[in-house]
Amino acid sequence: MVAPGIWLIRVGTPEAFTPVRYRSAPPLTAALADLEKCEKLPLALEGISVLRTPRGVVVELPMEMTEQIFGMGMNLNVVDNSGSRKTMRVSDNPNDTGDTHAPVPFYVSTRGYGVLVDTARYVSFYAGNLAPVSDDAAAAPAQSGLPATTTEQLYSNRGVVSRRMTIDVPVAAGVDLYIFGGPSAMQAVQRYNLFSGGGAVPPLWGLGVWYRGHSKFNAQNALKLAAELRDSHMPIDVFGLEPGWQSQSYSSSFVWSPDRFPDPEGFLKKMDSMGYKVNLWEHAFVHPTSPIHDKLKPLSGDYRVWKGLVPDFSLAETRKIFGGLHDALIAQGISGFKLDENDNQPVSARPWSFPEFSRFPSGMDGEQMHSLFGVLYQQTLYDRYRARNVRTYNSVRASYAMASPLPFVLYSDHYLHKDFVRAILTSGFVGVLWSPELRHAQSIEDLYRRIQTIVMSPQALVNGWYIMHPPWWQIDRVKNAANEPMENYKEVEAVCRELFQLRMSLIPYLYSAFSQYRETGKPPFRALVLEYPEDPLTFRIEDEYMMGDSLLIAPLFAGDDGKRKVYLPKGAWYDFWTGKRYEGQQSYTIEMGPTRIPVFAKAGSLVPLAKPVESVRPETQFELNVKVFGDGSQPFRLYEDDGITFDFEKGKQNVIELQWTAGGGQVRKIKGAYTGASRYRVAGWDRVAAQ
Amino acid sequence: MVAPGIWLIRVGTPEAFTPVRYRSAPPLTAALADLEKCEKLPLALEGISVLRTPRGVVVELPMEMTEQIFGMGMNLNVVDNSGSRKTMRVSDNPNDTGDTHAPVPFYVSTRGYGVLVDTARYVSFYAGNLAPVSDDAAAAPAQSGLPATTTEQLYSNRGVVSRRMTIDVPVAAGVDLYIFGGPSAMQAVQRYNLFSGGGAVPPLWGLGVWYRGHSKFNAQNALKLAAELRDSHMPIDVFGLEPGWQSQSYSSSFVWSPDRFPDPEGFLKKMDSMGYKVNLWEHAFVHPTSPIHDKLKPLSGDYRVWKGLVPDFSLAETRKIFGGLHDALIAQGISGFKLDENDNQPVSARPWSFPEFSRFPSGMDGEQMHSLFGVLYQQTLYDRYRARNVRTYNSVRASYAMASPLPFVLYSDHYLHKDFVRAILTSGFVGVLWSPELRHAQSIEDLYRRIQTIVMSPQALVNGWYIMHPPWWQIDRVKNAANEPMENYKEVEAVCRELFQLRMSLIPYLYSAFSQYRETGKPPFRALVLEYPEDPLTFRIEDEYMMGDSLLIAPLFAGDDGKRKVYLPKGAWYDFWTGKRYEGQQSYTIEMGPTRIPVFAKAGSLVPLAKPVESVRPETQFELNVKVFGDGSQPFRLYEDDGITFDFEKGKQNVIELQWTAGGGQVRKIKGAYTGASRYRVAGWDRVAAQ
Repeated sequence: MVAPGIWLIRVGTPEAFTPVRYRSAPPLTAALADLEKCEKLPLALEGISVLRTPRGVVVELPMEMTEQIFGMGMNLNVVDNSGSRKTMRVSDNPNDTGDTHAPVPFYVSTRGYGVLVDTARYVSFYAGNLAPVSDDAAAAPAQSGLPATTTEQLYSNRGVVSRRMTIDVPVAAGVDLYIFGGPSAMQAVQRYNLFSGGGAVPPLWGLGVWYRGHSKFNAQNALKLAAELRDSHMPIDVFGLEPGWQSQSYSSSFVWSPDRFPDPEGFLKKMDSMGYKVNLWEHAFVHPTSPIHDKLKPLSGDYRVWKGLVPDFSLAETRKIFGGLHDALIAQGISGFKLDENDNQPVSARPWSFPEFSRFPSGMDGEQMHSLFGVLYQQTLYDRYRARNVRTYNSVRASYAMASPLPFVLYSDHYLHKDFVRAILTSGFVGVLWSPELRHAQSIEDLYRRIQTIVMSPQALVNGWYIMHPPWWQIDRVKNAANEPMENYKEVEAVCRELFQLRMSLIPYLYSAFSQYRETGKPPFRALVLEYPEDPLTFRIEDEYMMGDSLLIAPLFAGDDGKRKVYLPKGAWYDFWTGKRYEGQQSYTIEMGPTRIPVFAKAGSLVPLAKPVESVRPETQFELNVKVFGDGSQPFRLYEDDGITFDFEKGKQNVIELQWTAGGGQVRKIKGAYTGASRYRVAGWDRVAAQ
Repeated sequence: MVAPGIWLIRVGTPEAFTPVRYRSAPPLTAALADLEKCEKLPLALEGISVLRTPRGVVVELPMEMTEQIFGMGMNLNVVDNSGSRKTMRVSDNPNDTGDTHAPVPFYVSTRGYGVLVDTARYVSFYAGNLAPVSDDAAAAPAQSGLPATTTEQLYSNRGVVSRRMTIDVPVAAGVDLYIFGGPSAMQAVQRYNLFSGGGAVPPLWGLGVWYRGHSKFNAQNALKLAAELRDSHMPIDVFGLEPGWQSQSYSSSFVWSPDRFPDPEGFLKKMDSMGYKVNLWEHAFVHPTSPIHDKLKPLSGDYRVWKGLVPDFSLAETRKIFGGLHDALIAQGISGFKLDENDNQPVSARPWSFPEFSRFPSGMDGEQMHSLFGVLYQQTLYDRYRARNVRTYNSVRASYAMASPLPFVLYSDHYLHKDFVRAILTSGFVGVLWSPELRHAQSIEDLYRRIQTIVMSPQALVNGWYIMHPPWWQIDRVKNAANEPMENYKEVEAVCRELFQLRMSLIPYLYSAFSQYRETGKPPFRALVLEYPEDPLTFRIEDEYMMGDSLLIAPLFAGDDGKRKVYLPKGAWYDFWTGKRYEGQQSYTIEMGPTRIPVFAKAGSLVPLAKPVESVRPETQFELNVKVFGDGSQPFRLYEDDGITFDFEKGKQNVIELQWTAGGGQVRKIKGAYTGASRYRVAGWDRVAAQ
């Protein structure tokens, strides 16, 4: 046992370059000890076997027949991994075989334990789909000797009855497995996140709405759109600049374009005066014209990407040079970055990234670097913000294991709405955050449904990198480019504004959920199975999730006629909008018009809703109305701090308890040493009782 | 130099299990010496570099900027590999990254050399798409610093200017590279095939038409359809039985079903009396009820597939037991087998085959076995036919390097007509044969177009495994199952019959091309670039190919309105049907009605066409009409032997020269000791002169 409820199983001689070695933060040991006690290794040691060959090391762990397996990366295509193989490869082109932006080699079982394979190799998990000859059950008679007549029939009769988790770690002569006890699946995930250093806490403004401008915007274009957004009272906190801000992109110079942004300070000052934080796009590959190119040459891999160097971010000297250039941008007021294309293309015939056999000065090879690259890159920039005691919230396209403390939200070029929702669920198993960003929409309905999803996600992002005007102004890309608004754009804009306002009203609730992420490792967004692992009906649910402890989100999708099936787990639930009460452990077909997203509140819960602001400023105080669902018996813990620094780590944070009794609502500070301006004012209580 | 024009470059310590070790036949050294002299290693040794790491071995070979690379497996998706990466993995689901039924690690360059990487590992080729930092050219300034606004723009600007072939061999501590000299690309391929043991020569009947019956057919069903086909005078030589013939399939028992085939000998006698050869479906996985299961248990891999054992076919004892059971079937008169599902599923989330970390009694691991499995399985059965001095022709779903002597034709569940045509081209680079089989059709036009392709391929196969009646009787699968013929089925049948007759008329021409394949290694079906590597316009052609030395085939596809562009290389060409003359080095848009396939004959060539028979019997003598295109200056070498045994290897074969002079045609035996019944009678000459 290496920490409370966490065991290390060492097989052979592990490799030098692994995610635990490159951890972002120390484990939160005290928080681990606060979890429910778990003193027994949740796997039978005698059921574990190991094979070592020139190909690498294979570890077999016992599984029970009824056990379901979740995790193994933030998968966009599938939630439940039982009976399947997944290979953990970072990829810009996610698929159901394990390629994903965050191929975290961690899984969690409904039996209440988790396993981290501490490797940067492209590890494969065979979750109960192999039939060893040594197991006589695997040769049990088939049901029928009749030949099949469809390919599906043929291949369904696979005859696997054996249940083992078989883990294939290529190349390595050994590997460390970390086993995370429960006793529940949720606690196993919490232990994994706390072992990683706890969850990331965004700055308060990070939970507002984000908008990214067109790739070719110059300062005037950006300021004009920013002003228009303010004029139309769209709540937006962060304005993102795409590649056009740089003198060179593909690869990156990391230097303002003298043509398009001749006066960065002046530009940033104007943006700040309108209440915007500014975020800058980049990727890691260093263009020959970048001022750090020559210094980084000996500190980079031996292959170029888009003519740029691939910095070895595992080296302190690389971080110093690369981070140093960024320090200048952070000093100018840049609130964060969008780290693009740090993933790989394992199944492409024309991959653009570096090959797996690359060599890096640290001694890593390309395969190891691909796995760790996203996390090391994130750390390089995050360290600079920490050094300034300034919080940041960012976008990133690749991550990996032990990433929960990093305030970076994953995104993808992959653009199917249902897959984007699925990733909200699967990100919660493996300690990463996910943004189901809006880019364009096929229809007004699609626009509304996608915005509904982004406002119920870790990062509410509209990414207009290829459109000159916002999508609610014109969804047709050709007309958008031709400056022709939709006829009813004012009406569409109003609906979108209201959805953004919904997001703004949820900031205190979400901020408190993120605080819980940091303190207890509990993911703010998560699949129902993590909460209800004893209920098999939750195993296959791919389109509902919990946002915080009280709200169940069931997004609707364009083309589904505003209807869907919702399964509500045990207990009672309330329609967030109408207050209608539903009994749990049942499925319901619900209908909802195009402007609203189905949300259900757990009976007994309290949900503080803020009067929406247009952007979150350091001085913002949220005026709260607390919705009380059912008997309101579950107090809500509202988190408070300065919202922008790391002072909370030194105790400068408060927990304010909202409590409902027969007599009405009570507000009570129950702990904390934050003494700054008060973040919240409770203006009212709104009881939603049983109908 | 290990053979005339063939060099071995050994890097480090190669692995024990490689395709050259498991070669099917000795190299044809005399035939190699007969090729044009090639005395200088076609690659600069000093341009070769090697990297050895725990991941494996990486070899870099020099490439020139103008060099184009072909081969690297029988690819269904792409012909020219220049600028791309391909990973050689055997797969039932072909794609453009190298997964294919025959991932042969051999490539040929337009510069006139070939390279075989003698490994059973999943080797990756990077054909000139990497940019080493050590190469300053790789950092040359980009064209433009302007940001792109589409993903395509972004990713096209990859900036690779360096030209190297980089070969990544995983796991291995060393590898043998065989370099095949030209001087031409064609001769490099010939050297590879002759080094492999020369090309396969099918029995004469193998070049007829094949039909496979429904999976659930019993003896009565099969006999009824076989009789109907004869009654309607459809030329068919081989009738195939699908899984239903076995007592158990998925996995296989290799034993006749007592219910469906209670009297195999009686059944086979009746089929033979109708002029059919019978072919049996199977896969290699041994069902627990098979009589050889228990004996094979210690001779198999450590994981089951479909509950069946995976025999280690590299062991003599396994071959003896597995082949022994098949000997009984061969003794009954079975003409060959269809070896299904011996490929793998490298990108599937639910692979059904054995894992890469499997262990086999020979010492091979699962990765090595996957690469070699198809070839070893083919050898196991082929050896039994050779031992009986009986030729055979078969179907198989996986093959690999050094496979040219094996009379097995690849096929796929993948079913796109254009991909099927592409594989005819790519199979010719890597020493394998391919069948673009017909299963069903979307329309009558699709039916005709697909049949036109199969009759111009190495194996003219109609695979009716999921339809009760032939597709020309009813193309709609639902109506086919409901016993409802198309209204005009007689008319459709007549067109198909005529196409099958075209195939039958080409048998002497094809048989001679196959003889050339064996004797000189020249593939009977091949891409134009192999013939005209100096003509860059041939590099990207994916839908035209040479069949033998004289005929250029340009298939049409349903939906293309009977029109297509045809590029004709240098020299003059004649429309096979109309005799219209075309000048080469030009593209033409040609039109052809639904019942005919565009075929062009090289000016000067002679093409013997036989009067079609309904099936090829041992006593069949072909009545030939020789078509003379243009001046007829190129004599044709007609191959003759008994058509069914291996006696030709002992010289019992004749070459008959057909020659055209101003005075008319001449027939002349120019060599050979075959003294059996004469195969051919030249009945006439038909001159197609310039219009």
